[in-house]
Amino acid sequence: MPLAPEERRPRLTPAIADVRRAVRASLTPLRDARVAGSSPIQDAPLVLVALSGGADSLALAAATAFEAPRAGLRAGAVIVDHGLQDASAEVAARAAQQARDLGLDPVVVARVSVDAGSSAGPEGAARAARYEALRREASAHHALAVLLAHTLDDQAETVLLGLARGSGAASLQGMAAESGLYRRPLLGVRRATTRAFCADSRLAPWDDPHNLDPAYARARVRERVLPVLESELGPGVAEALARTAEQLREDNDAFQQMIEETIEDIVEHVEAGIGIAVSALEANPPALRGRIVRFVAQSEFGVALERVHVQAVLRLVTDWRGQQPLDLPGFSAAREGRLLVLRAAR
Amino acid sequence: MPLAPEERRPRLTPAIADVRRAVRASLTPLRDARVAGSSPIQDAPLVLVALSGGADSLALAAATAFEAPRAGLRAGAVIVDHGLQDASAEVAARAAQQARDLGLDPVVVARVSVDAGSSAGPEGAARAARYEALRREASAHHALAVLLAHTLDDQAETVLLGLARGSGAASLQGMAAESGLYRRPLLGVRRATTRAFCADSRLAPWDDPHNLDPAYARARVRERVLPVLESELGPGVAEALARTAEQLREDNDAFQQMIEETIEDIVEHVEAGIGIAVSALEANPPALRGRIVRFVAQSEFGVALERVHVQAVLRLVTDWRGQQPLDLPGFSAAREGRLLVLRAAR
Repeated sequence: MPLAPEERRPRLTPAIADVRRAVRASLTPLRDARVAGSSPIQDAPLVLVALSGGADSLALAAATAFEAPRAGLRAGAVIVDHGLQDASAEVAARAAQQARDLGLDPVVVARVSVDAGSSAGPEGAARAARYEALRREASAHHALAVLLAHTLDDQAETVLLGLARGSGAASLQGMAAESGLYRRPLLGVRRATTRAFCADSRLAPWDDPHNLDPAYARARVRERVLPVLESELGPGVAEALARTAEQLREDNDAFQQMIEETIEDIVEHVEAGIGIAVSALEANPPALRGRIVRFVAQSEFGVALERVHVQAVLRLVTDWRGQQPLDLPGFSAAREGRLLVLRAAR
Repeated sequence: MPLAPEERRPRLTPAIADVRRAVRASLTPLRDARVAGSSPIQDAPLVLVALSGGADSLALAAATAFEAPRAGLRAGAVIVDHGLQDASAEVAARAAQQARDLGLDPVVVARVSVDAGSSAGPEGAARAARYEALRREASAHHALAVLLAHTLDDQAETVLLGLARGSGAASLQGMAAESGLYRRPLLGVRRATTRAFCADSRLAPWDDPHNLDPAYARARVRERVLPVLESELGPGVAEALARTAEQLREDNDAFQQMIEETIEDIVEHVEAGIGIAVSALEANPPALRGRIVRFVAQSEFGVALERVHVQAVLRLVTDWRGQQPLDLPGFSAAREGRLLVLRAAR
């Protein structure tokens, strides 16, 4: 028996309004980007929702199904089946059916294989496989953007995980609201709101047991760390962490921009290596000095330097007493006259 | 009966070596600063240790008593009696006796009165009274520096308290190793090490009951939050938080330096207010734009702007559609041609 109309079309509750507003704000610039106005909706540009079937991505899928046509866009879904759990194919098929019921089209299930022996660990390997599949499907379907359902709670967890690494602004800046193909419309929305959205919309989300498995650092942060922070420091901690991420991302972007604008003027190629002008390093504050060395090490040798190594390299500039060259992971650093010279390890 | 020599002079244990090394590194630049070499030790410059009688400051006092003469400095102590606890005068007298036994001279007990109704709260009011007393005694005794016993654990706690405020790098940068009169030699030393120092040196520290009182946010961070972070995220969390503070302090210093170098060129006085060149704000990345607005609001009106207000002001620059002036706490902001004009609230 078909549902009565008032059961099929949910009331506009606060949670539904909040999620839809967030999705609308994220889709608006895409509407502005597409060729103005003339083409019919079946030719409209496509956005793909990355759907797991969990409350966050289910709410995102439903809100995108509603908002995309109003922004002159088509909405589809990609469900990535990691094949890591016994029932993963069923979970994926159920999410795909929910997406089709919401009116999304196309709905793609992408089966990936996760490299269990990856040096990135099980979470890192699954993430790499997932993003690779999303990139592939976006390309195959000529999608303008892939929408990811990370919430404010995910952002707060990411900041706390970064804190534990202790590599400064770079590890605390969390996830970007926009990054190339990807958009995260829900970074300002609490997880409780996406759950309420699903309840209000009579959508039954899937609860990933990994989210509660204490073998995963993120699950421990979610279930044990954030609740303690909120009870001991006040209920606004998750929002404070998300604000912190936003500001530190701006800080990092500013430094990155300064370096990109000046790097050409301060480096020069030397025999079998690259030289950085000592005078330019001296003229910059320590925060920029360190980032310049990191930038060169990353772009020339693909090395992500730790702080202790950056500081050792910089002593060849700020505390020069005729030291020997430094051997670091992947390259060496030496003072040669007016240049700090970095050479690939042999 | 006097103690046998081997009991009076403690063995050089790892904890004693670590704390002394940290103190030595902090005193060395002071030695270099004083007039070179000739004067006898009784005329040597003075450093004062801020002593509570707790393990951290007792270890600092003992290590400074050992290291200061070797750096050509005299060492004294200031004990601040906040008068907040019944036994505070006794605690202060006992700490003073310990300082004299360690050979510190002068040893001053400064009794202060804490403004219980202060808007800064009880912790803030006690801190303000304490620093005022330290400044006064340093001035009265012509001290070159005041040494504070904050440890790596204190730094980690400060970062976590700043996280809960969520105002970005400024609230996460923790305490400076050097700031004007003050030096913090133990910022890289764990609290466990100062406790071990005291045990190894047969010094009996006083345990401030406030440190365990859950009415204080810092005590909750120490007793409940950091232990959970360490157990869930790994034992290096405190060190990671301290590293983060150090890097974010460098970042903030770099931005501050950039602003101080350019602010004169981009602001001009206008009728009853101050104007910032819109073109200069547009030419800078968002991180600097926001800091320029914050800098002007702070220096002209004494207002510490929240992020949401900074963003509202900046929309007069980045999203100019002829909006009305904005009324903010303490001042107003208006777009007037090529200037963003801030005027004190009337």
